[in-house]
Amino acid sequence: MINITLPDGSVRQFVDGATGYDVAASISEGLARNALGVRVNGEVRDLHRPITQNSALEILTWNDDAGKNTFWHSSAHLMAEALEALYPGVKLGIGPAIESGFYYDIDLGEGRTISTNDFPQIEQKMLELARKKSQYERREVPKAEAIAYFTEKGDPYKLDLLERLEDGTISFYTQGDFTDLCRGPHIPDTSPIKAVKLLNVAGAFWRGDEKNKQLTRVYGITFPKQKELTEYLERLEEAKRRDHRKLGKELELFAFSEKVGAGLPLWLPKGTALRERLEQFMRRAQVKAGYLPVVTPHIGSKELYVTSGHYEKYGADSFQPIKTPNPGEEFFLKPMNCPHHCEIYKTKPRSYRDLPLRLAEFGTVYRYEQSGELHGLTRVRGFTQDDAHIFCRPDQVKEEFIKVIDLVLYVFRALGFENYTAQISLRDPENKTKYIGSDENWALAESAIQEAAAEKGLPTVTELGEAAFYGPKLDFMVRDALGRKWQLGTIQVDYNLPERFELEYVAPDNSRQRPVMIHRAPFGSLERFVAVLIEHCAGNFPLWLSPEQFAVLPISEKYQDYAQHVYDRLVQAELRGSLDSRDEKIGRKIRDAEMSKVPYMLIVGEKEQENGIVSLRKHGEGDLGSMPIEAFIRSFNSQVAEMLVGN
Amino acid sequence: MINITLPDGSVRQFVDGATGYDVAASISEGLARNALGVRVNGEVRDLHRPITQNSALEILTWNDDAGKNTFWHSSAHLMAEALEALYPGVKLGIGPAIESGFYYDIDLGEGRTISTNDFPQIEQKMLELARKKSQYERREVPKAEAIAYFTEKGDPYKLDLLERLEDGTISFYTQGDFTDLCRGPHIPDTSPIKAVKLLNVAGAFWRGDEKNKQLTRVYGITFPKQKELTEYLERLEEAKRRDHRKLGKELELFAFSEKVGAGLPLWLPKGTALRERLEQFMRRAQVKAGYLPVVTPHIGSKELYVTSGHYEKYGADSFQPIKTPNPGEEFFLKPMNCPHHCEIYKTKPRSYRDLPLRLAEFGTVYRYEQSGELHGLTRVRGFTQDDAHIFCRPDQVKEEFIKVIDLVLYVFRALGFENYTAQISLRDPENKTKYIGSDENWALAESAIQEAAAEKGLPTVTELGEAAFYGPKLDFMVRDALGRKWQLGTIQVDYNLPERFELEYVAPDNSRQRPVMIHRAPFGSLERFVAVLIEHCAGNFPLWLSPEQFAVLPISEKYQDYAQHVYDRLVQAELRGSLDSRDEKIGRKIRDAEMSKVPYMLIVGEKEQENGIVSLRKHGEGDLGSMPIEAFIRSFNSQVAEMLVGN
Repeated sequence: MINITLPDGSVRQFVDGATGYDVAASISEGLARNALGVRVNGEVRDLHRPITQNSALEILTWNDDAGKNTFWHSSAHLMAEALEALYPGVKLGIGPAIESGFYYDIDLGEGRTISTNDFPQIEQKMLELARKKSQYERREVPKAEAIAYFTEKGDPYKLDLLERLEDGTISFYTQGDFTDLCRGPHIPDTSPIKAVKLLNVAGAFWRGDEKNKQLTRVYGITFPKQKELTEYLERLEEAKRRDHRKLGKELELFAFSEKVGAGLPLWLPKGTALRERLEQFMRRAQVKAGYLPVVTPHIGSKELYVTSGHYEKYGADSFQPIKTPNPGEEFFLKPMNCPHHCEIYKTKPRSYRDLPLRLAEFGTVYRYEQSGELHGLTRVRGFTQDDAHIFCRPDQVKEEFIKVIDLVLYVFRALGFENYTAQISLRDPENKTKYIGSDENWALAESAIQEAAAEKGLPTVTELGEAAFYGPKLDFMVRDALGRKWQLGTIQVDYNLPERFELEYVAPDNSRQRPVMIHRAPFGSLERFVAVLIEHCAGNFPLWLSPEQFAVLPISEKYQDYAQHVYDRLVQAELRGSLDSRDEKIGRKIRDAEMSKVPYMLIVGEKEQENGIVSLRKHGEGDLGSMPIEAFIRSFNSQVAEMLVGN
Repeated sequence: MINITLPDGSVRQFVDGATGYDVAASISEGLARNALGVRVNGEVRDLHRPITQNSALEILTWNDDAGKNTFWHSSAHLMAEALEALYPGVKLGIGPAIESGFYYDIDLGEGRTISTNDFPQIEQKMLELARKKSQYERREVPKAEAIAYFTEKGDPYKLDLLERLEDGTISFYTQGDFTDLCRGPHIPDTSPIKAVKLLNVAGAFWRGDEKNKQLTRVYGITFPKQKELTEYLERLEEAKRRDHRKLGKELELFAFSEKVGAGLPLWLPKGTALRERLEQFMRRAQVKAGYLPVVTPHIGSKELYVTSGHYEKYGADSFQPIKTPNPGEEFFLKPMNCPHHCEIYKTKPRSYRDLPLRLAEFGTVYRYEQSGELHGLTRVRGFTQDDAHIFCRPDQVKEEFIKVIDLVLYVFRALGFENYTAQISLRDPENKTKYIGSDENWALAESAIQEAAAEKGLPTVTELGEAAFYGPKLDFMVRDALGRKWQLGTIQVDYNLPERFELEYVAPDNSRQRPVMIHRAPFGSLERFVAVLIEHCAGNFPLWLSPEQFAVLPISEKYQDYAQHVYDRLVQAELRGSLDSRDEKIGRKIRDAEMSKVPYMLIVGEKEQENGIVSLRKHGEGDLGSMPIEAFIRSFNSQVAEMLVGN
């Protein structure tokens, strides 16, 4: 008999060799029906693989990431089976699951291609094969046998993969007529795959190396229910509608110019208003949390980066040094703000009483990215971090972490990100030598982070060995309105820079001690954050943040003066907006303002002019009746104040 | 008889050959006594030189810049006379008047030096010679005679000067035993020179060329009254006390770090608070004046600067290009923001109705300066302009100028600069071909500037031929509290960049027209402006701007908690300040806060804690009694609001 410990901590006994399915069935018939795989002592395995020792066990379903991943991996095999049936002689590369769905790299052979026109036929074939309820059978084979199999089949890519595998046991998976070299795991059989959609076809070099042959990469996604596929495709459409590059252009938030340079955004007036508002929001929150704003230049001399260690990393793939008329003098565009902040720390002697010192800067940094990797505002060559560096004593790390977590959560709340987890990255306890800093300080910092996260009740995932060599960290992973994951808000402990810059403080016993440094940026990059925010709220920004909070729409040119008066009054009251004085019908003006996602439309005509009022219309809600200008301003301001409670 | 027109427009008749002195005497005996020279048809001349034609004439006294200049030039001759008496055989270079005083470059001969220890003796000699009331006599001599004179005297520098002079008549001036080669003019005699102070001695290469011999440059200043000298020396001491480099360090506003690089300021927390406050003040004023903030990167591609024309000017004395892994791709640190703003203009089609378009940016720019030329914040390698570019129709230039003048005057008022003039630079009407842009547009812009300045009642000076090749401009010259002149706030018309960037707008007749561009920056550079402001107000910033508006001073550690409570409340109310929790006597804390020029000190002890109040002390004024915390906040806020009336 073996003991199986379930996620709720309960322990059940099973015969040696029982499977995940047996365990699931012992819990409920429904769980057994929906089980896709099983996690045994942290390792994901086939549901029907025998368990031969006492284990911690978790049944995986479609609701688990690992369950989905297994489902899609099995779907890749199903697609391969369909492709072999439809394109006899097709050679197969690799076919993994990805974040959403799967792909398979294939070599169709001379003269054959696949286009989106072929997708329906392949989808039909996959569904037909899935309905056969073929089991995914695992078989362990000696390497020689595996080589013999693919040699006979004539599949050079699998042979290439085999060559690189260590000797010893190799596993095959077979479903229906298809056998693949595969580590697994897989779902029990093909029947749960009820909905299939191929998404895209692209070229991909074998092993990602452009010296190799280019294969055809076919992307697809599958679901256990048709409804889930439909929803997924709707989300995909919605994501296209919300694409920040599209909305950024339509809402005139930012632009790129070839002459200025790729990846170097020009923030247009409306985007700048949004950005300044975000900055001001963060600046206020930070000042109240005891941060001290500083300003540093966008370049630094070579010596600065030799000291920080960045110089060693400046390679041929970076922006190159800026030489000057002074021979030997070289500057670099700053890739981060920390070295400058270390120099500010050093401008005067610091005592233990001065710590923590929290230096904050909206610092614009420059990093060279290949032009092919540039993408709207999410991947740029120049971006502004809401950066800060906290210099503190080792015993202050926990308290500082708690304060940073508070700040990050405040930001998430104010901007409507409700769904997040924290990933804590610790050092690899098996391999302590690759990290700098004392054991004592690591222990202090790691437990400080874990305790801080626990005290704030954060849902966390802990990863051993994922810490940087210079310290442990905590990353916030946020899900946006479309369920996509973004990494926002890193809090990173650093023992390295204080050492390199020889930072010190005078301790109570008058000895000189090294401070700990914490890097943190709740937005991360303002550019990337704005991109995520645009897609999260589909351009309908929270009112306090909206770049254009109102539009004054005169019914005709006759009311232009009164419209101007209304506009001027609102601007004086520090609302942001526009006056549409075009010679257009009011219907057209309203339509355009709705398109621009302006929250409030103030329509003015004869009645409004006579009574000193405005007729109000709200984006997406329609007519709100009329009211005096001052009443609108009051109502507007109290709405904004409510959104920012606590700040 | 000749007609003499006086500055008030009145005309008087004099005999041909009458002098400025005669004219002065005909006005008043006092004016004749104080007259130092005369301006005849724009040219400054000796008071006693005969006038032989109808002329416009102005009597110059100590109250005129040209009067002072003449006085100091004559004083340089007086010093030379004294030096020849004290250092026989001394050779003389040049001896001009400068903005404050004069200098003379001398060659003392092998083995002789002058140090500040020798100054009293020279000053005494000068006063002794001045009392002789020697006349400055002008004599015109043929060049040959002049050469013969200095050959005999053995003065190689004068001979070098003579060699470079055009043939024809040369003028000598003689007073007492001293004769100099000199164009003049000079004061009538030495007697008005009543107070003398030598200021400095330095090395200076003959003709400013380091290949030539190094001469000794002796700086001095003279006054008609001892009291004026005393005041001047006090101002000089005060200027040293107010030096922004000294105060910047003492008040912890900014610092420089060798590792970051010379001329690249690090703004410390208090300086950043000051700077952010200035920016916010300007941002609000600008938004209310219809400016649209934008944000652009700190680099631009080579193509951008080829288009703007800056590329041609990037020389070996500039920051060199930033290369990238992409061969041929080059970026430059931006030396100005206008090219980026032109690209923003081009992001969409513009109609005549969209103009003026006023794009504003606190844009940080980088320009390489030789390290020897760097000076605190006034001469740096990276600085932030309160930059804006107004794109408008030619017929809008005047109105835009008026609006910019309003903004500049608002800024001057809020920051306590009461004393300013405007210099209008127009094109040289004799040499129109060196300017770009049509005659019609130049006429429009020049009269627009002049009319705008007149309508705003600005005291103006108009300079022909001082316009840039691309347009006329208006500069504000400001006098600070010590009477020193600073150029702040330039408004520059530009026909060049719209041409080079091919900027267009659609006119009412659907034709495509070029907009006019106006560059303007009221502060100019934030760095330089802060330097001027520090020296102007000696670090006692207006309350609204003060980087540290209050300091909470607990009488002892017992009241630390209450002090923290007061501090937290003030920070919540968005006041900026500090809490002095050092274990020091209260007297010491007050002294330190006074030294830091903190406007309000809030002293808290037992009585204050019990009653929830603070004892208030104002910088330079002392005790103000006690009041509840909330009352202090209200009083503080209303003081600030009053200072910013109109914004």
